[in-house]
Amino acid sequence: MTSDNSEFRVGLLGHGTVGGAFAELLPRHAERIERITGLRPSLSGVLTRSSGSFEEILAGSDLIVELIGGLEPAREYVLAAMRAGRHVVTANKRLLSHHGEELWELARAEGVQLRFEAAVAGVVPVIRVIQESLAGAEIDRVHGIVNGTTNFILSEMARTGSTFAEALSEAQRLGYAEADPTEDVDGSDAAAKMAILARLAFETPVHIDQVRYDGIEHIQPDDLEYARELGLGLKLIGTAERIDGGLSVRVHPAFLYPGHPLASVGGPFNAVTVESEAITEITMSGPGAGGPQTASAVLGDVISAMIPPASTPAAAHRLEIVQDVVSAFYLHLEVADEPGVLARVAQVLSDHGVSVKSVVQKGLGDQARLVMVVHPVLESRFDAAMTDLAGLSQLLRAPPRAIRVIEEEFA
Amino acid sequence: MTSDNSEFRVGLLGHGTVGGAFAELLPRHAERIERITGLRPSLSGVLTRSSGSFEEILAGSDLIVELIGGLEPAREYVLAAMRAGRHVVTANKRLLSHHGEELWELARAEGVQLRFEAAVAGVVPVIRVIQESLAGAEIDRVHGIVNGTTNFILSEMARTGSTFAEALSEAQRLGYAEADPTEDVDGSDAAAKMAILARLAFETPVHIDQVRYDGIEHIQPDDLEYARELGLGLKLIGTAERIDGGLSVRVHPAFLYPGHPLASVGGPFNAVTVESEAITEITMSGPGAGGPQTASAVLGDVISAMIPPASTPAAAHRLEIVQDVVSAFYLHLEVADEPGVLARVAQVLSDHGVSVKSVVQKGLGDQARLVMVVHPVLESRFDAAMTDLAGLSQLLRAPPRAIRVIEEEFA
Repeated sequence: MTSDNSEFRVGLLGHGTVGGAFAELLPRHAERIERITGLRPSLSGVLTRSSGSFEEILAGSDLIVELIGGLEPAREYVLAAMRAGRHVVTANKRLLSHHGEELWELARAEGVQLRFEAAVAGVVPVIRVIQESLAGAEIDRVHGIVNGTTNFILSEMARTGSTFAEALSEAQRLGYAEADPTEDVDGSDAAAKMAILARLAFETPVHIDQVRYDGIEHIQPDDLEYARELGLGLKLIGTAERIDGGLSVRVHPAFLYPGHPLASVGGPFNAVTVESEAITEITMSGPGAGGPQTASAVLGDVISAMIPPASTPAAAHRLEIVQDVVSAFYLHLEVADEPGVLARVAQVLSDHGVSVKSVVQKGLGDQARLVMVVHPVLESRFDAAMTDLAGLSQLLRAPPRAIRVIEEEFA
Repeated sequence: MTSDNSEFRVGLLGHGTVGGAFAELLPRHAERIERITGLRPSLSGVLTRSSGSFEEILAGSDLIVELIGGLEPAREYVLAAMRAGRHVVTANKRLLSHHGEELWELARAEGVQLRFEAAVAGVVPVIRVIQESLAGAEIDRVHGIVNGTTNFILSEMARTGSTFAEALSEAQRLGYAEADPTEDVDGSDAAAKMAILARLAFETPVHIDQVRYDGIEHIQPDDLEYARELGLGLKLIGTAERIDGGLSVRVHPAFLYPGHPLASVGGPFNAVTVESEAITEITMSGPGAGGPQTASAVLGDVISAMIPPASTPAAAHRLEIVQDVVSAFYLHLEVADEPGVLARVAQVLSDHGVSVKSVVQKGLGDQARLVMVVHPVLESRFDAAMTDLAGLSQLLRAPPRAIRVIEEEFA
């Protein structure tokens, strides 16, 4: 397929922030790459919104880099490229979280490589490490900060005491959030990435629709005040873990105990911790986005694809997807400052088997703030208690709020 | 070479802590590995101090795992195995830091794989990430905490205020330090690991003798007190970095500014930060030692070797090794509490072009403690100033002490 023995032709689909950075990076490193692989890479064609033909680019390439994003026509192009025997490198988390099994199956059938390091956590090499370094470790849990926008916003709220809206504006001003930040702040971007990580770590197909997620839009400055007082970090945490022979994948804001390896990850950085009995835990962190950084991850994949063999995930064995898991919670209530309110609240919790670990009550004029942490409990029970609490509307001055708490396991 | 199509025979040299853990791990994961690779691995022979024949094990194996440690006979065995066309996985940092070029050259010539993830930072996948994920990034600097014993001791001194000797005893009690801790505490173990990392990150052969190193034996509790006051972390830091077209590789205790990704790495953990313009920086951390953890890294390498091709470092291009680099320093002086002492000290520093950034002086009866931080200066100049300061013996109550300071670059 190569036009001569030492040339390796890369066809690029998409020329946005990452695509543009990749088109610049490849020629700059061509000589270095030739020294490593024996092949000299070159850009054989670029498909943009307004120019280029996919079929022509495909015909003239040894490998296709897909940086268009979205589901279609990205899916169609990736499938066509693999059917034509080409390796594919993509950064498309949406595509993989919706159609991963279809794509990996075709890659295996065609004996081509489908690489996607840049789809999760930017340049942080979590895909390669899970697929290759940890191939021999049975993974128990993956925790990740996999969305830089939300991590920047939460860091900013913690640092300055600002509201969510103020921190979001600052993130947009600095280029860490898009004009429409919905998919970042509502947790769905992180959910897509966790679906991919869970698929690899647990060899179980996970569709984006099987990932529960919450965003950070409802986080209040006083939640972060509480976190600061206790030395806790508040992060948007993706979790994928074995539970009773099944698999739970979810994304929630969560308090992290001081000393958790993700607690100190600030600003727009991403980080992933992988836990397994054999390895204890390893953590990787770095920039989660940025054109040049993401392009660098894409280039690492291109180089790996130039040196076979395939790293296609093995055909999957299936764990059952678990939706209801055990968690500790922080519970925040603005209540009327009347006798018996704490007793009523405590009774509702107790009725659902929710056990209180600590309470702080502060008077605020004619109302009071009750902040509690409850012991780990099945989420469905806690949710039922929250529903009943919300029903105590005559006692409440605002809807009750809850945030998960990740506790130190061996404290 | 395989005895049948689906079997993959692993010969194990060495049956100590890591070897024993590996011998247990391999059969437990054999089925999983067969699913990934299509080959079922088995332990075909074990060489211990008292039993087994290297020649017989070699003849009956597809891959040799070398966990004997030390230079000979490990070197001889590894060379013989590769000459016989076998892949080799080793955790032997001494061997690679002394004879790496010879070994890699033979691996390239024979077309076999020589993998060594476990030689540096235990299960933290820094070798693979530098060699593969970052193959397309031009690396500017590597900072590492690559010795868990010293990191535990420094963490313990910071946490409890204990002396070096007390913290070392505690480390020995907990199994984090060996009965003879010399190579850990004097920095030579970290130096061997940095030689290997520098070789890979900068494609430049680095022999252990070209790595300058200091240990932590001379760190005093009040150095850590000072670090705590300023929010600085004190770590044994290995550094490999490009300097003026050359390469500097060194290991020293160093203060880290708050927020440096290595500042929060505590206890026996290892961590490595890789900086490059293209990727900004990525950090990886995890357990740096431990039988099962290290064995898990070895097993990851075995699995990778079962799926060719070779990841042998490319033939090296050479950067010049630089020995004299620029650094900021913390300077600690116990002086007579007499008029003019500060002036004399300042004069000596000034004579050598060393510029003071901050000074704290505390009276202690008839003597005083001068703690200074000086601006970045060429180390040879600072060393000359230290020599002159030590000569002011009538003014000093103890020899002057200095520790490097890693400052935030963009503060």
